[in-house]
Amino acid sequence: MALLGLDLGGTKLSLAVFNENGKILQKETTALNKRKGKEVGELIEKQINKFRERESAHDVLIESIGICIPGIYRLKTGTVWAPNIPGWEDYPLLEEVKKAAGEIPVTIDSDRACYVLGEHWKGNAQQCKDVIFLAVGTGIGAGILTDGKVLRGSNDIAGAIGWMALNKPFNSEYISSGCFESTASGEGIARVAKKFLRENESYSGELRNIPLEKITSRDVFTAYENKDTIALKIIEACIEYWGMAIANLVSLFNPEKIILGGGIFGPAINLLPAIITETKKWAQPIGITQVSIEASGLGNDAGIYGAGFLALRNNNLSNTQ
Amino acid sequence: MALLGLDLGGTKLSLAVFNENGKILQKETTALNKRKGKEVGELIEKQINKFRERESAHDVLIESIGICIPGIYRLKTGTVWAPNIPGWEDYPLLEEVKKAAGEIPVTIDSDRACYVLGEHWKGNAQQCKDVIFLAVGTGIGAGILTDGKVLRGSNDIAGAIGWMALNKPFNSEYISSGCFESTASGEGIARVAKKFLRENESYSGELRNIPLEKITSRDVFTAYENKDTIALKIIEACIEYWGMAIANLVSLFNPEKIILGGGIFGPAINLLPAIITETKKWAQPIGITQVSIEASGLGNDAGIYGAGFLALRNNNLSNTQ
Repeated sequence: MALLGLDLGGTKLSLAVFNENGKILQKETTALNKRKGKEVGELIEKQINKFRERESAHDVLIESIGICIPGIYRLKTGTVWAPNIPGWEDYPLLEEVKKAAGEIPVTIDSDRACYVLGEHWKGNAQQCKDVIFLAVGTGIGAGILTDGKVLRGSNDIAGAIGWMALNKPFNSEYISSGCFESTASGEGIARVAKKFLRENESYSGELRNIPLEKITSRDVFTAYENKDTIALKIIEACIEYWGMAIANLVSLFNPEKIILGGGIFGPAINLLPAIITETKKWAQPIGITQVSIEASGLGNDAGIYGAGFLALRNNNLSNTQ
Repeated sequence: MALLGLDLGGTKLSLAVFNENGKILQKETTALNKRKGKEVGELIEKQINKFRERESAHDVLIESIGICIPGIYRLKTGTVWAPNIPGWEDYPLLEEVKKAAGEIPVTIDSDRACYVLGEHWKGNAQQCKDVIFLAVGTGIGAGILTDGKVLRGSNDIAGAIGWMALNKPFNSEYISSGCFESTASGEGIARVAKKFLRENESYSGELRNIPLEKITSRDVFTAYENKDTIALKIIEACIEYWGMAIANLVSLFNPEKIILGGGIFGPAINLLPAIITETKKWAQPIGITQVSIEASGLGNDAGIYGAGFLALRNNNLSNTQ
């Protein structure tokens, strides 16, 4: 038996064939090359067909398919909202994929749900029933497993932690992406740096050497490592926000583990001790002793492992929903 | 068939006999009269025996018992932590109650779990599977139902929303009860008022007429209604905090309803429109359109209805866990 997992990102599509023990037998990544709308759906269909035929030629039968998408999956309609894929406001992905899948079961879910399921299956959250994946990349989201089940909410958009209110009073900068995300995501870090440079002409540190509109969070991390005063301030504000947000997850969910992942927690993962120190100040004092705060065990592969787990679950081989 | 629900508070114990449709047939409340430790357990046992005998004399058979306790119920050990009952750090309540219950099934849970189950059964959250009860009284807690199930967390202390971090930087005033609770609970409101009066000798408004150590949140609400400048400031800060906390619940849980209850939301319930206005600023913009924010439908009876529902569930008459 083999499982097929797909991880769709904003710029690329990965497919992997898993055996039922979660070992990757085949993997391939294709660039989206600015495809949009139905073109992305057709690429997915084509790749599924290609993988099915190729495996079948080796007498391997793909029995189930799971797909991780960069946005929200609407369970009732089988449609996807993916902000980085033009034309995917409510794209009928399940219908499209079924053309290639035929009778094979297909399950689709959001990237944040897949991240936590991937860690639960093969990463740092194995055996955990109450675990949260905090994904900090371009944006911020949380994949939440409570009593072994993905928290969906009434309309599939639970886990929108980028909107967490962490600092009063309300500020118009929070309108487009929320208080937490507007400061402590990849885009937030770049935004705050650009704003500072615009407002402080006297600053002549290393961030000034980069064309203003091209500054990224990675530049800010590099400047932070070089102890640039402004980068220090920006990243220290992020550590405070990350600590507060993780503390709020501890107090509300009383989880066994909180896993930190996403593009920002590549460069930022050496900040983990400082983040935990901040978290301990704020969190419910018993809950904080019952949780382990760790880096992702799967890194960039969390999504594809989550997709593999969705496929496994289709075949009723797991109790985790 | 009849169900027995018990609602234990810090100062009193209520018992109610329900029919399976949730109609209260009998109800009685007894003061704890400063009982502590095992004396409270024995009172519970005595009252259960009394009710069972009295109903049995009328040919009514109590078939199941549910108990709402003012603290945390530890499911694995059957013990209770209740901060307002001396000697109940880890009290073996299940064992004690079984002496009176015999073969009848008994379920115990925290007040916040019972509040949301009560509203789900007979209050303003009927038919809701994703609903949160925000209880603001002396302290602050949240009873959370996700996909029809009470959120417990790994060690039964989920919902400790009084610890929510809402305003940086960390302040030593948050150490004993958390950022949110230290400002926006009954005790928090009184604490903030006392602190203001101590630090501002020039203030000569109506709160000055009350002996400093006797000021309660109720005094602050009365002064607020009389437009006392300081009370206005204190309550407006609470509205901001309540709005932020509710927004965070909307963004994280994507619930259908958030129910506001507890002692403070008696006097504060006319502030609901102002709280909702604040919530809308901060919450995830789609989630906020999918949630209804309402006052409790059961008021002080939410706990006893929740206890009745625990009893109903023992008999497998409900799908909600």
